Amino acid sequence: MTITITAFERSPDGGQGLARDTRVRWALEEVGQPYEVRLVSFRAMKEPAHLALHPFGQIPTYEEGDLALFETGSIVFHIAERHAGLLPPHSDGDADARARAITWMFAALNTVEPPILELATARIHEGDRPWTKERLPLVEGRVRDRLKQLSARLGGADWLDGGFSAGDLMMVSVLLRLRSSGVLDDYPNLAAYVARGEARPAYKRAFAAQLAVNTR
Amino acid sequence: MTITITAFERSPDGGQGLARDTRVRWALEEVGQPYEVRLVSFRAMKEPAHLALHPFGQIPTYEEGDLALFETGSIVFHIAERHAGLLPPHSDGDADARARAITWMFAALNTVEPPILELATARIHEGDRPWTKERLPLVEGRVRDRLKQLSARLGGADWLDGGFSAGDLMMVSVLLRLRSSGVLDDYPNLAAYVARGEARPAYKRAFAAQLAVNTR
Repeated sequence: MTITITAFERSPDGGQGLARDTRVRWALEEVGQPYEVRLVSFRAMKEPAHLALHPFGQIPTYEEGDLALFETGSIVFHIAERHAGLLPPHSDGDADARARAITWMFAALNTVEPPILELATARIHEGDRPWTKERLPLVEGRVRDRLKQLSARLGGADWLDGGFSAGDLMMVSVLLRLRSSGVLDDYPNLAAYVARGEARPAYKRAFAAQLAVNTR
Repeated sequence: MTITITAFERSPDGGQGLARDTRVRWALEEVGQPYEVRLVSFRAMKEPAHLALHPFGQIPTYEEGDLALFETGSIVFHIAERHAGLLPPHSDGDADARARAITWMFAALNTVEPPILELATARIHEGDRPWTKERLPLVEGRVRDRLKQLSARLGGADWLDGGFSAGDLMMVSVLLRLRSSGVLDDYPNLAAYVARGEARPAYKRAFAAQLAVNTR
């Protein structure tokens, strides 16, 4: 069955790969699944046809036959469950490793990403507010608290728990949002970790595909 | 094998059930699994022994034999995967329903909870800052945007997708954080949805168990 995902007609980042369809593209490239892309405008995202697919009016969505999913974490997990390459298998010896890899997916999305998005919101959506200059160091401090802990856990390892997994795919994707801020440079092992993710052929193909849309 | 989770020695909410161990207790009660609790102090949470279990120095954690997990979403998912009652089964006819239930878990944690936590942060941690009075309506507006969309999707249904699932467990838990703000009252179907979750016997047992710790 054909897999169809949605992506921004024009990404707000102009093709830096920060829109969430890149995460889904990356997962599909890692497991070698072809996919089609339906581009949606900001206006269309808030209309009934798209809201039926995605109740929060965002991208990406994922359609495969009768199945329609939204929420990047769920889509990446679905891909990882159905195809080898992103999670240790269900078999007895690897069940614990599988549960730990899934843990890192949730950690990326619920513990590391929220302060990073808050920093982006403070900079972009509240950039012109009178309080922002004084407030930014507070918000950045919350990001640094998380990065310090993550850096300590990663140590000198290549990936968060054994081999590359969907947990790393998600964590690298979340950390990439910090690149332009320069904050990541203070945590060399995290910067190297992100670079390791970007160097994967599957990531490169995903990045190129979203860039092509945004530079048409 | 014995399941052991960690919880606050004293929860910051004094036993209102908002600490994340309540979510894990609820999941374990839904599937009928007994568990033990190890209480940890704020100081102990930041020490090496706990950081080895939870790199971000939080609760809850989950230990079962050699397996150690952190991150509430991951723990609840692990429980739901191993025991019937929280997710439609893997069988062919229900695979799509299962993927959709998992989608709601991620939506609760990555789309609905972040603005709700931001509102809590603005009220509590930035409550004494000069900008907070002017900024709060902005932050509350972001929460209302999500609630409006969620309310539209839920409509008159009892649960988000068919029967009660781990997705509802997580969404109700996330929405409970709004109760004291009164915001939820403006979305009667969401308020009723949360009340429906709280009325479940498993939730009541989980709530009572965490309350007992906090009123010793």
